[in-house]
Amino acid sequence: MADFNEATTVKNVEPGIYEVEIDSSWSVGDVANGGYLVALILKAVVSESPHPHPLSTSSHFVAPPSSGPARVRVDLLRAGRTTATLRATLVQDDIPRVEALVTTSTLSHDADVEWAGPPPEPVAPVDECIPTVVDLPDGTHVGVLDHVDLRLDPQTLGWFSGRPAGQLSMRGHVRLADGTEPDPIVLPLAVDSLPPTVFGLGRLGWAPTVELTVLTRSLPAPGWLTVHLRGRLVRDGWFDEEAEVYDVTGALVAQSRQLARVRVS
Amino acid sequence: MADFNEATTVKNVEPGIYEVEIDSSWSVGDVANGGYLVALILKAVVSESPHPHPLSTSSHFVAPPSSGPARVRVDLLRAGRTTATLRATLVQDDIPRVEALVTTSTLSHDADVEWAGPPPEPVAPVDECIPTVVDLPDGTHVGVLDHVDLRLDPQTLGWFSGRPAGQLSMRGHVRLADGTEPDPIVLPLAVDSLPPTVFGLGRLGWAPTVELTVLTRSLPAPGWLTVHLRGRLVRDGWFDEEAEVYDVTGALVAQSRQLARVRVS
Repeated sequence: MADFNEATTVKNVEPGIYEVEIDSSWSVGDVANGGYLVALILKAVVSESPHPHPLSTSSHFVAPPSSGPARVRVDLLRAGRTTATLRATLVQDDIPRVEALVTTSTLSHDADVEWAGPPPEPVAPVDECIPTVVDLPDGTHVGVLDHVDLRLDPQTLGWFSGRPAGQLSMRGHVRLADGTEPDPIVLPLAVDSLPPTVFGLGRLGWAPTVELTVLTRSLPAPGWLTVHLRGRLVRDGWFDEEAEVYDVTGALVAQSRQLARVRVS
Repeated sequence: MADFNEATTVKNVEPGIYEVEIDSSWSVGDVANGGYLVALILKAVVSESPHPHPLSTSSHFVAPPSSGPARVRVDLLRAGRTTATLRATLVQDDIPRVEALVTTSTLSHDADVEWAGPPPEPVAPVDECIPTVVDLPDGTHVGVLDHVDLRLDPQTLGWFSGRPAGQLSMRGHVRLADGTEPDPIVLPLAVDSLPPTVFGLGRLGWAPTVELTVLTRSLPAPGWLTVHLRGRLVRDGWFDEEAEVYDVTGALVAQSRQLARVRVS
């Protein structure tokens, strides 16, 4: 079973072209986890970028890839002093599967917080959270949770015993099981590893993401990441999901929003 | 002075290529408003899309364009039954200026809300809000506000008289002065017409956006749009700004997030 570094290995074969291997075990059912695919793409993007850190990464999921060989094509659109902008496409069988736009920059390790809004609702400490079972209620195997150690706040776990909380909310702590410490490449995986917030409405099942944008706000300290998910609206078959991710020092390290499809039940 | 329809006219000159004219009056100082540029790009995108509505639009601002002629190049990456994905580039002098990814779909006019979270803090009614002056305190002319009728909630206007509220927050109502009713093309302009939330910290001045993602959640009813802006963190020269936009019926019609640069004062 490939660890994070192996599963996100990129091999530069031509200018701007990277060969990758989509690992079958970083998945939900048969489909690779979206956060894992974004991490894979970012490995290629930062290799081409004059700035080391993805500041904003917008990914549109065009068509689900299969596990196995694929390519990432990266185009540097502009390199500036403060930021650079890159476009990246994950291609398999000549079909674009994930299309991403990334603005990179150089984040400092020790910048002061000039202003921060009020923190969200607290999450129960790691040792009071529940290590998450790796299969969905419908039997779908969530392979990515063999790699991501996920501990969910009991208050957002009611759906598992048939008592959904009745709101779009999910909270917990994550770290990589192989010991890889968090960095801006790992963060997309952190925002996309928890069960979809619609589980809080009792809507259990796969919820395919069509778009995910992740902002890196600080370089994370080693240790657990704490993830707060919320959503605002379920309408016309679509729901939004916002994540805030904090590191062990309490620094806001990532924000994200995704739009996903909820299956008509 | 070009109205919205004129200022966002796109002319198809080759397959996937549109000639446009960036109007000098939809601007902040010398630079075109980001929401206006996104609206212009979306006009070309929906012309190429099998689905009529931009569901998620992620725009990365690569380099500021000048007013005058430019081109939008649109590539349809995939057309599916429920969604399509398109890539679009606003190019001027062979330099990409704005790069966008758009997932389109067909939103229904009368879908029920399955679930909605608690609404944000109320905004003062239109007639208690302040019609917004069109120049910034530093003298910059905000031309886009000759086109957008903006009424700001007095509670978020303290910065104008030297008493900033001390938080990333801005609230108001907007409509197009030329009588154009809101639709999914107008929505990016609505989320980007208010003063930057950092004004609430007394940080007055231009705050260039590097990335803006807008979700269309419902088709807006005719009339005023009510916009709530909030931000979570100012750190290392960057701040986030989230918008929720409601129509006159109280429906959540758009959500957005942008990452922007705050000038070191």
